[in-house]
Amino acid sequence: MDFSSFRVYDLEQPRYFEAPIFPSHAPGFVYALHRRHEQGASQARTSASGTIFMAEHSGTHIDALCHQAEDMHLYAGQAVNSQIQTPTGFTALGVETIAPLLARGVLFDVARAKSVERIEVGNPITSADLQATAQAENVTLRKGDVALVRTGNGALWHDAPAYLRAGGMSADASSWLASLGVRAVGADNVAWDEVGVIDPDLQVSLPGHLILLVRYGIYIIENLNLEELAQDKCYECTFLCLPLKMRGATGSPVRPIALAPGNGQS
Amino acid sequence: MDFSSFRVYDLEQPRYFEAPIFPSHAPGFVYALHRRHEQGASQARTSASGTIFMAEHSGTHIDALCHQAEDMHLYAGQAVNSQIQTPTGFTALGVETIAPLLARGVLFDVARAKSVERIEVGNPITSADLQATAQAENVTLRKGDVALVRTGNGALWHDAPAYLRAGGMSADASSWLASLGVRAVGADNVAWDEVGVIDPDLQVSLPGHLILLVRYGIYIIENLNLEELAQDKCYECTFLCLPLKMRGATGSPVRPIALAPGNGQS
Amino acid sequence: MDFSSFRVYDLEQPRYFEAPIFPSHAPGFVYALHRRHEQGASQARTSASGTIFMAEHSGTHIDALCHQAEDMHLYAGQAVNSQIQTPTGFTALGVETIAPLLARGVLFDVARAKSVERIEVGNPITSADLQATAQAENVTLRKGDVALVRTGNGALWHDAPAYLRAGGMSADASSWLASLGVRAVGADNVAWDEVGVIDPDLQVSLPGHLILLVRYGIYIIENLNLEELAQDKCYECTFLCLPLKMRGATGSPVRPIALAPGNGQS
Amino acid sequence: MDFSSFRVYDLEQPRYFEAPIFPSHAPGFVYALHRRHEQGASQARTSASGTIFMAEHSGTHIDALCHQAEDMHLYAGQAVNSQIQTPTGFTALGVETIAPLLARGVLFDVARAKSVERIEVGNPITSADLQATAQAENVTLRKGDVALVRTGNGALWHDAPAYLRAGGMSADASSWLASLGVRAVGADNVAWDEVGVIDPDLQVSLPGHLILLVRYGIYIIENLNLEELAQDKCYECTFLCLPLKMRGATGSPVRPIALAPGNGQS
Repeated sequence: MDFSSFRVYDLEQPRYFEAPIFPSHAPGFVYALHRRHEQGASQARTSASGTIFMAEHSGTHIDALCHQAEDMHLYAGQAVNSQIQTPTGFTALGVETIAPLLARGVLFDVARAKSVERIEVGNPITSADLQATAQAENVTLRKGDVALVRTGNGALWHDAPAYLRAGGMSADASSWLASLGVRAVGADNVAWDEVGVIDPDLQVSLPGHLILLVRYGIYIIENLNLEELAQDKCYECTFLCLPLKMRGATGSPVRPIALAPGNGQS
Repeated sequence: MDFSSFRVYDLEQPRYFEAPIFPSHAPGFVYALHRRHEQGASQARTSASGTIFMAEHSGTHIDALCHQAEDMHLYAGQAVNSQIQTPTGFTALGVETIAPLLARGVLFDVARAKSVERIEVGNPITSADLQATAQAENVTLRKGDVALVRTGNGALWHDAPAYLRAGGMSADASSWLASLGVRAVGADNVAWDEVGVIDPDLQVSLPGHLILLVRYGIYIIENLNLEELAQDKCYECTFLCLPLKMRGATGSPVRPIALAPGNGQS
Repeated sequence: MDFSSFRVYDLEQPRYFEAPIFPSHAPGFVYALHRRHEQGASQARTSASGTIFMAEHSGTHIDALCHQAEDMHLYAGQAVNSQIQTPTGFTALGVETIAPLLARGVLFDVARAKSVERIEVGNPITSADLQATAQAENVTLRKGDVALVRTGNGALWHDAPAYLRAGGMSADASSWLASLGVRAVGADNVAWDEVGVIDPDLQVSLPGHLILLVRYGIYIIENLNLEELAQDKCYECTFLCLPLKMRGATGSPVRPIALAPGNGQS
Repeated sequence: MDFSSFRVYDLEQPRYFEAPIFPSHAPGFVYALHRRHEQGASQARTSASGTIFMAEHSGTHIDALCHQAEDMHLYAGQAVNSQIQTPTGFTALGVETIAPLLARGVLFDVARAKSVERIEVGNPITSADLQATAQAENVTLRKGDVALVRTGNGALWHDAPAYLRAGGMSADASSWLASLGVRAVGADNVAWDEVGVIDPDLQVSLPGHLILLVRYGIYIIENLNLEELAQDKCYECTFLCLPLKMRGATGSPVRPIALAPGNGQS
């Protein structure tokens, strides 16, 4: 397979302490260098390395199916009990069960379609918005695809308080995507769903988490950077995402990329 | 790009506490679940998540160029000083500077070529071994490729003490690969090089680390699982590896995959 | 208060990575130095500091009352629910509720009384052993005291596998101490109780944890070093222990000391 | 030793995530509960416990002598080199070398003596202030004592931004205390010294750190809570502080207490 004629889009936000983090996952990402290159070592070669303390839901990451439950059941009716949910992680539906994601990706640049800089809180993205966006972009979402929804919020990554005031999806946007049989969804905001709103039908917050992860077994990727993809109006791409097989974890940091025919400069 | 006719090989070893770890990077990987699905929550939807404490050089991982220095200089003559090497990581040549690796991969199944179960300590892999292996496999390594060297040790991942007694590369194997202009190298052992041996010419331990990372700017991927690839005699593949952009870190856990024409079952 | 005529006994074992740790609390204690004294700083004064990753039950530590439950109830009938037990710790009976311990301490040197080097597994310390020891030492335990029981195991701290094979208390030793109204108990082993034995009456492992923490509200201190105190036959002392007020934690590392009339050399 | 007629003052601030932290030591203190009391366990007794990630200089803590250097030398002329300063901590002058502190404590309630609510930035406490305070309190500091200086800032612990704007000591206050041969000093602020000011004579920031730790070998205790002691005008006390013996660490969280004759209610 020859990638030389493809452009590579990097969809991961940079990782650093004090990057935006959803409060449940604070302090997010902490890196400390403890082995150093130092004068006076016993040989010419020296090594440096460090330690990482992080939430698996920090930065750009994918949610495993075990991350969410509805009435104490995970996806596919798997009951939560102490054999499944343990102090060191889940023995079913953990992030290590996610196969590499290699799929057609479709970008829904909703911010552009709605002619706004970014989707604001209080005005969540609906299925109608997604359908109008697809029509404007002349793309069709298909079974097995990964749906990438741009709120425009990704441009605010370096301003954590602004980033965390992000808008997001309504429940019916998630339901529509689920009904099409997508393999995964992703967005350039902190929680896919609009934060802090109770869905009137489902009576839960973050309804997309319940619909997608628990009811349909569809992965959610959060904190994507879709700015470059949008700038190039790259509405169809080859999407690659390789979650780490951390046994029992409820998610994984990832560096998704998108490939699209182009001049091969990434 | 259609992957449906390709087979996906997963080259990442599973991550869990007490997996093999090079002593400098102990305790390796620790995951603790702290948010739980619980009865009696205020709504039907519940979330579970945890924290990770790990060395960036735990499990299957890639070494950034700042990981190694020779006489206090990194790759390309970059002097190590306190502007470059800081308590929270490097400001040059950190892992966040590694572009996604999408390249032709060539598997050198040296264990098979030498008709041994695995390469033992005391008998490191030489450039002659690599050349004989390539000839036996009828493959040619080219500039920009990723060289994957199988010692056979990857099959021992679940037996940490055995795994850590791994054999590895001699300095001249690294030199030969570097001379061909590969983009990255990888192996199914803990440190690429044979551990604990001082190279007589360079007068350093882990000479490949010095040659590849410092002198040539070639990345090293460690703790790969090459068993399945070898079993299928898949000597040429498309290799994909997406390091996390952890600012200033000296490496990143990764889940590399190999793609090869096949029946599309992974 | 003048301490100059008192001898100070240090009852804390040293803390370091790979010190003995009960498996549930692995990897125990990890310290990494990340800020360094370095040449070429902008001023003559430089700072060094690091990060600690640890289990609160690592090394010499005290158990908070919330550490244990019986049929989902903590001490004093406090039901465990999601208001009390949260992802970031307990909102009742956490370690921050332990007042400084300043009490009369009584050393039960059972190993000496039984003329053994140390109490072995399979032969747990009984109330009869404690009473015989007190008689041999000519001391009387009183309400409010801290009972320090020496198994002899503390001398093995630097040999983790040997240390972890420690003997410990039977249920009736804990019951007897509880009946006397002690404020806290402590021992020079990993878990106070003998590990891995189901008490025939209570049908639980670690019965002392249930009796002392849940039923009587008596703190347990583990991994004490009682060697020096025993050597000096110091059977009565002033015991001081100052748990850290880590909100919601189930225990705290501590450095207990014992004071006894003496030459003031510590 | 009978403590029943003594009042115990607790000088430790509570520990929790988002408590005030000096920026170099962020994120301070993080506790996550991972083992839980759960319904349906195999026996009636259940255990809960967690993990702690923290800087050793978080919350109320003591600085070890290795924490500071002057021109790459620690206290007593100990040169900093790679044998002394290692990735896992210091092999000399680490916090594990601090003996239990049992000493006469003298409270300098400077805020009260100056009739201000708290010492503000820009107006650091001088030796003259300390002497005037001692005179007003009718106490004399002696060799071997612990000097506790109240800025009034401790009352702001629960308001991190306000707390971190604290005032502190001038260099000459530290010099005067050092000249008297105190064993340790402590204050109710984040860094003893006033933060962010370069001392005109020493040409360093945090000059007290250099004077006390490096030149005199005197420990510094930070983030004390001296409010209750001040309220009771308890200017002389018995001061107890028991640093954890964390091998090689540059400091330790502590829970210091003060004892004073009283009604025995703590």
